[in-house]
Amino acid sequence: MTMRIAALGGGHGLYATLTAMRYLSPEVTAVVTVADDGGSSGRLRAELGVIPPGDLRMAFAALMCAPAALADVEQRSGPDAVRRHQLWAETFQHRFGGYGALAGHPVGNLLLSGLGEVLGDPIAGLDELMRVFDVDGRVLPMSTVPLQIEADVSGLESDPRISRVIRGQVAVATTPGKVRRVRLMPPDPPAAPPALAAIEQADLVVLGPGSWFSSVIPHVLVPEQLEALRRSDSRKILFVNLAPEPGETPGFSVERHLHVLHAHADRLRIDHVVVDESSVPAGREREHLERAAGLFGATLDVGDVAVPGRHVHDPVKVAALVNQLCDRELNR
Amino acid sequence: MTMRIAALGGGHGLYATLTAMRYLSPEVTAVVTVADDGGSSGRLRAELGVIPPGDLRMAFAALMCAPAALADVEQRSGPDAVRRHQLWAETFQHRFGGYGALAGHPVGNLLLSGLGEVLGDPIAGLDELMRVFDVDGRVLPMSTVPLQIEADVSGLESDPRISRVIRGQVAVATTPGKVRRVRLMPPDPPAAPPALAAIEQADLVVLGPGSWFSSVIPHVLVPEQLEALRRSDSRKILFVNLAPEPGETPGFSVERHLHVLHAHADRLRIDHVVVDESSVPAGREREHLERAAGLFGATLDVGDVAVPGRHVHDPVKVAALVNQLCDRELNR
Repeated sequence: MTMRIAALGGGHGLYATLTAMRYLSPEVTAVVTVADDGGSSGRLRAELGVIPPGDLRMAFAALMCAPAALADVEQRSGPDAVRRHQLWAETFQHRFGGYGALAGHPVGNLLLSGLGEVLGDPIAGLDELMRVFDVDGRVLPMSTVPLQIEADVSGLESDPRISRVIRGQVAVATTPGKVRRVRLMPPDPPAAPPALAAIEQADLVVLGPGSWFSSVIPHVLVPEQLEALRRSDSRKILFVNLAPEPGETPGFSVERHLHVLHAHADRLRIDHVVVDESSVPAGREREHLERAAGLFGATLDVGDVAVPGRHVHDPVKVAALVNQLCDRELNR
Repeated sequence: MTMRIAALGGGHGLYATLTAMRYLSPEVTAVVTVADDGGSSGRLRAELGVIPPGDLRMAFAALMCAPAALADVEQRSGPDAVRRHQLWAETFQHRFGGYGALAGHPVGNLLLSGLGEVLGDPIAGLDELMRVFDVDGRVLPMSTVPLQIEADVSGLESDPRISRVIRGQVAVATTPGKVRRVRLMPPDPPAAPPALAAIEQADLVVLGPGSWFSSVIPHVLVPEQLEALRRSDSRKILFVNLAPEPGETPGFSVERHLHVLHAHADRLRIDHVVVDESSVPAGREREHLERAAGLFGATLDVGDVAVPGRHVHDPVKVAALVNQLCDRELNR
C-alpha cells in the first residue's frame, strides 16, 4: 500500500526533505510555515496581505521536479511531459532581475498570490496549481493566516540576564543575540484543516531540517497542529540540522537543538531523531544526545545523510535511511 | 473542413473579434500588436524589456473563454473543466489592487513575461500556455520585438499646416491634435514568422476593429506582414469601428477610417469592408463609402453587428455576418 507522508518544515530544508520523501511515495503532503517576512514573500504579504508564498512555492517546485516525480511523469506521459514539468518549475522559481518594482519576485510567488486572491483561498489555489501541472501530492500552509515570529532574545544588553523581544523572521534570523524562545503572532493561530487531516492520516510524519526557530519550531506552536501531532498514530521522524545556522542557532549543538524544540513542544512524542554521523561525537556526549532524544521518547538514529563536504542533506541518503527505519520497525 | 482564421488587431477590439471568430472555427490565430506603452504593459516593457504582454494576454483570455471555446471544452472534458477554464482566465485577467509595486499588473502579464524570459522566446511561452491550459488556436505577436508608434500630428501649433512628431501609443492616443500618419519604431520591424505562415495559410483573415492608429494600422506597417497579406489567397474582411475614438480618431467618418488605412497600406486588397448599419448614412454619402471600400477592391457590407445602444461589436452578430459573407461567396 502507498505510504502517506506528511512533511513539516519550510524553506530549503523542506525542499530537500520533500525530494527525499518523494522517493518513498507519491502521496506526500507538505505542510509549510507561513511566517516569512523577508524578500519577495515579505514584500507580497506587506503589499497584498497574502500568506507569504515563497516557502509554498518552493515546496510545490520540490514535488514537481523531484527525480522520483519526474520518473513517474515520464512513465505516465513521456519525455516531453518531463521537459515541460522542468520548464514550469523553472518558471515558477524564476526571479525577475534588474532593479525595478518586480526585481527579486519569483514568478510562482506572483501567480500563487493572484490565484489565491481570485479564489479567496490560498489552499484552493495550491490545489488547483497541483492539478493543472499534474503534480502528485499536496502543498498546504501551516496556518490559514500570515504569521509573524516573535522571539525572546538575550545577549543584546550588557546584562546577559536581560532578554528583549524581537519581532519578524528576518529580525530573529539575523539578531546578534541568543534566541531563547519563539512565539507566533497572532498567538494560537488557526491551523489549516487539511494539514491536520494529513498529519492524522499519515503513516509517516517528518519534521525538519530547517531554520530551527523560524521553519521547524513554528510547527509545534500552532495549537491544533501540535494536538494533531500528539494524536496521530503515524511514525514520526525528526531531522536535526547538519550545522548551526549563523543568526538563529550559532554554536548550537545537536543536543541543544533538541532541548530547544522540546521546550516549545510539550508532550510531543517522536519515534526517531535522525542525526548525521558527522555531527555526533563519540563517548559520553553521545549518551547526552540519546538522553535528549529520549525527551521525545525517540531513539537516536545516526546515519550518513549528508552531501559530502556540505552541510546539506542528501535526499537519496535520507530516503534510504527512512526506508530502513520503517522496514526495521515493520519487521520487529 | 475546418476554416483557418487569422485575426489581426489588438486590445478590446481584437477580444471581440476573437470571440466572434471562435464561433466559426477552433483554428483561430490571433496576431497581436505589440506597441502598447501604457499601463501594466508599459511598465513591464520599460522594466524588463519584454514585448508588451497586455494585448497578448487579452487575446489568450478571449480564445480561452469564448462561449464557443467553453462549449468545446465542456464536450471534451466536462463541466468541471469549463469552470477551471473560467477560473484561470479570470486569474490571468486579475489585476493586483492597492497602491504598491504590483498594483494594476494583471497576473497573466507577469506570467507571460516570466515564461518568455525563461524560454528566451515569447512565442514559445504563448504556445506553452495554450497547451497547458488546453486552449485551441494560437496567439502570436505581430513582431518579435517591442515596438513604438510615432505619429505626425497637426493642429498642435497655431499654424495648422505645421505637423509635429508624437511618439508612444499613449501619447498618440491622447494627443489633442489630428493624427495624420503613423510609423513604427524601429522602422521595418521583423514580423513573427508563424504569424506570416498563419496569414498565408488562412482561409479567412480579419482586421479590426480597434484603435485605428495603434491597433489596426500597425499591422500593415510591418513590411513582411503586409507582403504576406498581399500574397495570401485568403478571403479578407475589414471591420470598421462603430464610432470615432476620442484622441486617436475624433470626428472620423467611416470613409475617413478607410482613407487613412489605405494611405498606410499600398496595394492591400480586401474582400469585404464591414460597417454597422447605424454608421452608414443614406444616399450620396453611401456612394462615397462604397468608393472608399473600392480603394481596397472591397465590397461594402452593411449589417447589424453592434450591441444595441453601445459602440461595441456583438460577437454573435459578427459571426453570423461573416458566415453569411463566406457562404455567399462560396455559392457564387
